[in-house]
Amino acid sequence: MTFLGELRDEVSRLETGQAARERAAVDRSGAVPAGLPLAVVRARDVDDVRATLRLASRHRVPVVPRGAGTGLAGGALADEGAVVLDVSGMDRIVEIDPVDELAVVEPGVITAVLDAEAARHGLRYAPDPASAALSTIGGNIATNAGGMRCVKYGVTREAVLGLDVVLADGRLISTGRRTVKGVSGLDLTSLFVGSEGTLGVVVGASLRLRALPEQTLTAAAAFGDVAAAAQACVALAAARRRPSVLELLDGATLAVVDRAEGTDHATRGNALVIAQAEGPDAAEEIAAIADILGKEATWSERAVDPASSQRLLHARRSALPSIERFGRALIEDICVPRSRLADAFAGVRRIAAAHDVAIYSFAHAGDGNLHPIIGYDAPSAQPPAAVGRAADDIFALALELGGTVTGEHGIGLLKRDWLAREVGPDVLDVHASLKQALDPLAILNPGKGF
Amino acid sequence: MTFLGELRDEVSRLETGQAARERAAVDRSGAVPAGLPLAVVRARDVDDVRATLRLASRHRVPVVPRGAGTGLAGGALADEGAVVLDVSGMDRIVEIDPVDELAVVEPGVITAVLDAEAARHGLRYAPDPASAALSTIGGNIATNAGGMRCVKYGVTREAVLGLDVVLADGRLISTGRRTVKGVSGLDLTSLFVGSEGTLGVVVGASLRLRALPEQTLTAAAAFGDVAAAAQACVALAAARRRPSVLELLDGATLAVVDRAEGTDHATRGNALVIAQAEGPDAAEEIAAIADILGKEATWSERAVDPASSQRLLHARRSALPSIERFGRALIEDICVPRSRLADAFAGVRRIAAAHDVAIYSFAHAGDGNLHPIIGYDAPSAQPPAAVGRAADDIFALALELGGTVTGEHGIGLLKRDWLAREVGPDVLDVHASLKQALDPLAILNPGKGF
Repeated sequence: MTFLGELRDEVSRLETGQAARERAAVDRSGAVPAGLPLAVVRARDVDDVRATLRLASRHRVPVVPRGAGTGLAGGALADEGAVVLDVSGMDRIVEIDPVDELAVVEPGVITAVLDAEAARHGLRYAPDPASAALSTIGGNIATNAGGMRCVKYGVTREAVLGLDVVLADGRLISTGRRTVKGVSGLDLTSLFVGSEGTLGVVVGASLRLRALPEQTLTAAAAFGDVAAAAQACVALAAARRRPSVLELLDGATLAVVDRAEGTDHATRGNALVIAQAEGPDAAEEIAAIADILGKEATWSERAVDPASSQRLLHARRSALPSIERFGRALIEDICVPRSRLADAFAGVRRIAAAHDVAIYSFAHAGDGNLHPIIGYDAPSAQPPAAVGRAADDIFALALELGGTVTGEHGIGLLKRDWLAREVGPDVLDVHASLKQALDPLAILNPGKGF
Repeated sequence: MTFLGELRDEVSRLETGQAARERAAVDRSGAVPAGLPLAVVRARDVDDVRATLRLASRHRVPVVPRGAGTGLAGGALADEGAVVLDVSGMDRIVEIDPVDELAVVEPGVITAVLDAEAARHGLRYAPDPASAALSTIGGNIATNAGGMRCVKYGVTREAVLGLDVVLADGRLISTGRRTVKGVSGLDLTSLFVGSEGTLGVVVGASLRLRALPEQTLTAAAAFGDVAAAAQACVALAAARRRPSVLELLDGATLAVVDRAEGTDHATRGNALVIAQAEGPDAAEEIAAIADILGKEATWSERAVDPASSQRLLHARRSALPSIERFGRALIEDICVPRSRLADAFAGVRRIAAAHDVAIYSFAHAGDGNLHPIIGYDAPSAQPPAAVGRAADDIFALALELGGTVTGEHGIGLLKRDWLAREVGPDVLDVHASLKQALDPLAILNPGKGF
């Protein structure tokens, strides 16, 4: 019997139509594979996932795990010959335990849905990728997703206590535990977090929840240039302030937001910093933050109510949609030591000039995580050569500054060459050994991650 | 040429005397190997470590990495035929960066020394194992050490940004990065943290530092029984309070502390809770904590100055020394979901009665991490059979309650059977595959960890 025939007998739902395969072949990276996958499994439960991997192992068929498909690095691209294993239908919140402050979920749960459900218990799921309204917990785990709140609460890895994972051969294992501490055995949980579907398929997760803050306060300040804004962010760190959000937008970003949203941010300065503080000492904290930001600012404001808070943060939230309204965008994601953030902004500006491309930059400034967005017009999603060259120069810049080519989006398909340059041959060799150990037939998301 | 002859030519210092080998054969677990190791390498630099592993690979000689030897699970025990690789002499603090809030250190740096050095920059190294004055950063990393402050700041893993590791074949790799975020490649850093010297030898670490709190305030409350005390700790969690320290001592522990220290804790209740709060909102936080603890307490007190704070915390700090003053002690370390802490204390009390042994229990209550200390008198370090049976029952209890057999001390040599029961054969099989991938000749701390 053929692979697809056996698979159809064993899984809840198998789609082989052209439209379904086309939709399941791409993610939000903009890249398009040459061919189309064989079929799409819509998994309903763990048994569907186990059967898919067991059969794929037997027939040596590549499997591309998939959540909502919001990834930006091509981690979910599925080419000819692969089967897509879509777990977005496994979307139950199994349990929320308000005393132990944890949630047990299936991988297809939408990040924002979990956060909202946790809020009913006075809790929240802290990691908040910009895609939270669309992306799944499983996808967040696969990429070790970040977000604005990570500057205070850490990335996805810090929120994962344990995982249920189906291995390449179809065996189901559980890693980690329901306790907040534990050191029995190797940290398999962290090994699977961020592994982009190359080592196993996450079918369940125990997630750490945190207390909802009593209040969240917001301040913003504009600066004459991005260097002054970055310096103000460094000054906050040096003063040991602890913002829960610290975002920096450059002048190009402010201009495109103003154009799209009808706002006037660019009239106040060539860079904008938006900060939030949370918790019982939020008032004291935001006052201290506003004082420091205000020193060199050309304009500053403190939100007096939730509505004005939302209005200030809206500049950041609308940045990417504004850019995409006027053309296509290559979304980049470097991270540098936060002391080098001003150098990173300056370097990106030089790169934009050298290649004559438009680059809009904004950053999770407290983490040194900069998103240079290269705008372009092109008939297809394939960016012009100058865009690719500018991106390469941005990656080289990140490494020069002691940073990394990806702060939170992942390596996927698009940054594999740069991973090699970042980590070197011996570390790549360790990756290959671990991959061989866990996926000896190389059926799991081959060609991705490393 | 023999292994030892070649080794002597290549490393800074090699000791083969009986006394040095005896000292290097044991740690603080109390267990004693049957034989003695071949020799002890006193490594001065990375080249010493690389040469040792290269030669050990060539000659198939087991290598036992060693820091200060303060481990409690037998992870550093060295038996006949092994060479001990002592890195405690690699003890330089290479760099402290106050803006990026990180330290770069060699593995032999004493934990408390790093913390004190960081304090000169207004920073601190947050993980604080009870052994901090003696244990090394390398040992902390090998065991993923915990401590009292972990309830607020996380364990060692949360403080490690990147590592320099010598692999089994002598190659040197760097994992992680100097940035606080980054998702390029697999999380090798977390794989090495807690791997108890079985996958590589840590020769350098980039560590995250945190702001020193402006103030630390302390409160304590006594309770009629340990169940009421545990319940009060659960009530703190339910009220979303965020103590930086939350310790619980049972009546047996209070009695032995009183006997050793001449204090009168046991007159106030049969259980004592000690809490601290830190940061700008410490006053508000400790008041809220004291209110909640006070509700069911038989006695309570709030420290008004650092001296009274130290006096309250002294009961906890002197617990283990007090027990060890009157006999030997088997130090255990289970962790349960914090909602099950009262059940864990009750279960341990039943186990003590069933085996007619003395068990003193105290806990990092905020994390559900309980240390049952089984006291005994014996001419040798080898505990009586009843002590071993009681320990086995304690591990079984931890698993029954949804917990783990080790919260922060590690598996080492002593808990391997229990690891197998906790994680099951498939997870052990994954461990074996990863070990095979990174240490194919099985020379690195064989028989430890898993």
